[in-house]
Amino acid sequence: MAFKLVGISGSLRKASCNSGLLRAAQEALPAGVTLEIADLTDVPFYNGDLTEKPAAVKRVLAQIGAADALLLACPEYNYSVAPALKNILDWASREPDNALLAEKAVGLMGAGGGMGTSRSQYHLRQSCVFLNLHPLNKPEVFSNAFAGGFDAAGNVTDPKIREQVAGLVEALVVWAGRIKA
Amino acid sequence: MAFKLVGISGSLRKASCNSGLLRAAQEALPAGVTLEIADLTDVPFYNGDLTEKPAAVKRVLAQIGAADALLLACPEYNYSVAPALKNILDWASREPDNALLAEKAVGLMGAGGGMGTSRSQYHLRQSCVFLNLHPLNKPEVFSNAFAGGFDAAGNVTDPKIREQVAGLVEALVVWAGRIKA
Amino acid sequence: MAFKLVGISGSLRKASCNSGLLRAAQEALPAGVTLEIADLTDVPFYNGDLTEKPAAVKRVLAQIGAADALLLACPEYNYSVAPALKNILDWASREPDNALLAEKAVGLMGAGGGMGTSRSQYHLRQSCVFLNLHPLNKPEVFSNAFAGGFDAAGNVTDPKIREQVAGLVEALVVWAGRIKA
Amino acid sequence: MAFKLVGISGSLRKASCNSGLLRAAQEALPAGVTLEIADLTDVPFYNGDLTEKPAAVKRVLAQIGAADALLLACPEYNYSVAPALKNILDWASREPDNALLAEKAVGLMGAGGGMGTSRSQYHLRQSCVFLNLHPLNKPEVFSNAFAGGFDAAGNVTDPKIREQVAGLVEALVVWAGRIKA
Repeated sequence: MAFKLVGISGSLRKASCNSGLLRAAQEALPAGVTLEIADLTDVPFYNGDLTEKPAAVKRVLAQIGAADALLLACPEYNYSVAPALKNILDWASREPDNALLAEKAVGLMGAGGGMGTSRSQYHLRQSCVFLNLHPLNKPEVFSNAFAGGFDAAGNVTDPKIREQVAGLVEALVVWAGRIKA
Repeated sequence: MAFKLVGISGSLRKASCNSGLLRAAQEALPAGVTLEIADLTDVPFYNGDLTEKPAAVKRVLAQIGAADALLLACPEYNYSVAPALKNILDWASREPDNALLAEKAVGLMGAGGGMGTSRSQYHLRQSCVFLNLHPLNKPEVFSNAFAGGFDAAGNVTDPKIREQVAGLVEALVVWAGRIKA
Repeated sequence: MAFKLVGISGSLRKASCNSGLLRAAQEALPAGVTLEIADLTDVPFYNGDLTEKPAAVKRVLAQIGAADALLLACPEYNYSVAPALKNILDWASREPDNALLAEKAVGLMGAGGGMGTSRSQYHLRQSCVFLNLHPLNKPEVFSNAFAGGFDAAGNVTDPKIREQVAGLVEALVVWAGRIKA
Repeated sequence: MAFKLVGISGSLRKASCNSGLLRAAQEALPAGVTLEIADLTDVPFYNGDLTEKPAAVKRVLAQIGAADALLLACPEYNYSVAPALKNILDWASREPDNALLAEKAVGLMGAGGGMGTSRSQYHLRQSCVFLNLHPLNKPEVFSNAFAGGFDAAGNVTDPKIREQVAGLVEALVVWAGRIKA
């Protein structure tokens, strides 16, 4: 039976390098591992007044619920998280017993400036404490998108970055197996 | 001439206690100080592909640009920032020379669980470094909304919280005066 | 064969409430679990110029190396970690291949002001990423030492705090079992 | 009258690059500015049981008290602060009314791995909130000591790093003037 990853990119741009990291992961999957990429386009901000979940939210939450582990591509905006990524995790956290997220493994990666979105990733790691997600310690993937390595469409062109992403996916699957409750 | 504050609440709920903190601030303004509360309802996620700023974004950015200082009511979602609040700051940060935000004073407050949104506020403070905003050190306003102090509509009912908010506004105006470039 | 915990308190005070939390843990050990408390009294600051490890350092590092998991009692000084606690982890991290720490489980608890040392604990959690330690997500133990619950010698007197500590130790042993590489 | 800076390096190594950053600052002082470098060698860990401050502590606290602003050279150990630097700030914070630190301006810089001690500096910034210190937002000085730029004695050899340090000192003096209470 396949090990299922759900990939979520915090950037809504078509040519996002962070989304490119997810596509690179798709091209580097170990045997028996699948990776579905979530589409956040129509996901609105969480709002406690909404009595019904919008269709786009339901669709992504179903992908998260079906996944064995999460692979998050984290842009960094102003030294912290991208709202679109944080927001879908906030939506997911509202399920009874935190059933969509609790005890799942998470891999983090990001493409940004010189620090490779590290500041954003550390903030996300703090959210994982409450969400009861288990982020992988190593490898951390910090890609400098301003130093090349991506084409104009956001695709990874640097083989070293591809290798890092492949290493992350591999380690994530191992870690998910280890922490299986 | 009036000293202008713009108040932004990270919660979109009608009965939000964080929005209630902003209303409490409006009722506690020193002479010569005004406080306009921004409406984030129709502000979409920042997306680099959008070539034109949506009207709701323009409206809030104009309020921010006109303000002498910012007063932020910060919910805490999953140990970090509320996406709607972070998002409007991200929008604001995209102006040439960071002209809407640079060098302005900021006051932070929040209503949430037992820690009063402190975890969220510290993450926002990190964003302020890059945004070149100057958050007030003290007082920090951490309100426990689960321990009472707010009515069902999110209005502050606890006089101690009102006092804290009043103290924050007063200190913010002084701090803004001090750092005037 | 016993499951071995090493307990480290970041406070050097005789009557430290954080050290009291460790003693409470010793009185709440599940069958088959031991807890040795490290003594940081004579541990100096890490200094790369020292060619030989001081005896006090060697002693604590041996305890850490022999332990299956770490239980850290984290004071909060000025919104961050207590230097004595951070320092022994820094010493421990200098072993080849990070052999003393890598892949071990960690439980965090603390006694302090109203936030119960939470700010300090989140900073320590960030260090755990690099140290390749795996901190428990839940329960988080945040004790307000200023609201009673401890006697003048730092001993826990509040049965609820004892229960929280017992719950933490129990969960830590389970978590350590799960992540066993 | 001179504007007095006190410089504190978190590393105790003789050939520390962080201490080298402070020496570079001394060689780049604007007219009318002095910089005294504190010596942490004999400063012990803060311990609430000590009834008398050790001489080395008194000496550094006197330097801090006499300074108009602080210039901190922050190593990064395991993704967080260097204990020796945090510790002297903890000592300083124990004075009545926080008289040594309150309302002073702070400049942060660091030399370390690829992220230039950024993770450590953000943790220190959080401490500044409670200490009521006002860290400069910009420039942030993140030097990669592993990429050259320093000689074997820790002296800055890269003119770009010298320029960054000079820019930091200059901005710090301006910022200190702005926030003068």
